[in-house]
Amino acid sequence: MTLKMEVAELTDFMAAEFPQVAPDFAIDRLAPMEIDLRLKVEGRHLRPGGTVSGPSMFSLADCAIYLAVLAMIGPQGLAVTTNGSIDFMRKPASGKDIVARCRLLKLGRVLAVGDVLMYSDGVDQPVARASMTYSIPPR
Amino acid sequence: MTLKMEVAELTDFMAAEFPQVAPDFAIDRLAPMEIDLRLKVEGRHLRPGGTVSGPSMFSLADCAIYLAVLAMIGPQGLAVTTNGSIDFMRKPASGKDIVARCRLLKLGRVLAVGDVLMYSDGVDQPVARASMTYSIPPR
Amino acid sequence: MTLKMEVAELTDFMAAEFPQVAPDFAIDRLAPMEIDLRLKVEGRHLRPGGTVSGPSMFSLADCAIYLAVLAMIGPQGLAVTTNGSIDFMRKPASGKDIVARCRLLKLGRVLAVGDVLMYSDGVDQPVARASMTYSIPPR
Amino acid sequence: MTLKMEVAELTDFMAAEFPQVAPDFAIDRLAPMEIDLRLKVEGRHLRPGGTVSGPSMFSLADCAIYLAVLAMIGPQGLAVTTNGSIDFMRKPASGKDIVARCRLLKLGRVLAVGDVLMYSDGVDQPVARASMTYSIPPR
Repeated sequence: MTLKMEVAELTDFMAAEFPQVAPDFAIDRLAPMEIDLRLKVEGRHLRPGGTVSGPSMFSLADCAIYLAVLAMIGPQGLAVTTNGSIDFMRKPASGKDIVARCRLLKLGRVLAVGDVLMYSDGVDQPVARASMTYSIPPR
Repeated sequence: MTLKMEVAELTDFMAAEFPQVAPDFAIDRLAPMEIDLRLKVEGRHLRPGGTVSGPSMFSLADCAIYLAVLAMIGPQGLAVTTNGSIDFMRKPASGKDIVARCRLLKLGRVLAVGDVLMYSDGVDQPVARASMTYSIPPR
Repeated sequence: MTLKMEVAELTDFMAAEFPQVAPDFAIDRLAPMEIDLRLKVEGRHLRPGGTVSGPSMFSLADCAIYLAVLAMIGPQGLAVTTNGSIDFMRKPASGKDIVARCRLLKLGRVLAVGDVLMYSDGVDQPVARASMTYSIPPR
Repeated sequence: MTLKMEVAELTDFMAAEFPQVAPDFAIDRLAPMEIDLRLKVEGRHLRPGGTVSGPSMFSLADCAIYLAVLAMIGPQGLAVTTNGSIDFMRKPASGKDIVARCRLLKLGRVLAVGDVLMYSDGVDQPVARASMTYSIPPR
């Protein structure tokens, strides 16, 4: 399995296709079937008390798995999320980015499944866990 | 079972506690263990092609169940989402709000569970389904 | 939307194709996109203390949605579950069957989604909630 | 973090408390916050065509996370599953046991969360993924 898109291409693709959310994210690491994606936490991602909101973490997980799929199949795909589950396990550390470590568990012809552990940057225990299924349109 | 908070109180609570997201939402209907919550769709909720983004629908479901819980237990609670699952089933209609119809299935001492069907306003078939668990802190 | 299989045909299909689990279940009601399926609780479904086990309820939900799909598409399909989520909310009543009330929320060309509320027979509050996605093979 | 129960104690506990399902399972490996649990596949776990049924895999995941929790908190706990999500990704290999590799992601005072990858014995690609939440009663 080899990558069809590298970090720079994925970053450009996000900026062009999803300009509203692209500035929120940075790719820390990319490998076949794996990606580490960073949520650059800003005020708009926070809840009272300074913790990162649940929907911001859902968005991070969704984007991480999407990019991991795109990196493998190339930019032609119009993959859509069909299902997601998420567990919020710990309060994120205040003032820190959230880093998602994502792996694709399945990359089939029509469905892809990935899972993600999310960490406050530099902290050992995960703050959340998510898994998502993407439907890949016929090519 | 009776409501401890009415629509006006919930709306004020959201505006005070969650000023960043409160303008996104409007309560269409409130009853014991039930709420209809509207996502007032704006450009920031959209993906290319004009459909409402998955994270915006997750946020709507999360907020609906949270408000349904608060309406029953009152504003003293600091309930947090511990788990959510969501199925995206159809492409939302362009240019329409999303309305979440939420019911609480369980309101226990420590855990509450709710589920939600989400519709493009005025359209019969649901665009998404979600269920979430909230942890209710000791009172 | 009309039914392609009636109760008797579904029951025969289960007995022929899934003889190991068919005796566990009875169809209480069938309508387009809806089914009520009963788990006839026996000793093998119980946990210590006399409550119905989680996997038995998962199996009931899985079977209910599967039969609801088959009733609509006919017996030719070899649908497989791709995803499920389940919330266990209350302890089932001792000595009672579990009844699943299932509706299909989506019946697409390749994916079907259903959800289920499960009740101890005759009791108002649901014991569990589940949703599942089925992949429908090309016809 | 140290184990409060070893393999022999967990095995005895299962045989005493869950005699109906205990013979289905064997502990391959146990470490703090981790367990590998084997489903010893028999005819009763199979679907037509010889694949392991979805509910059998749900049961394996549920049991693996339960035992991983018990190993850490000791046999006094009456933990119950509150929530589970499962993705079925590949057809299990015929005639092989299923091995669940489980890790606890959170072991809190009231909630524990674990996830599991399941493999046909000796095969590299996982057949299923699951995550579950357990509620731990006050001690």
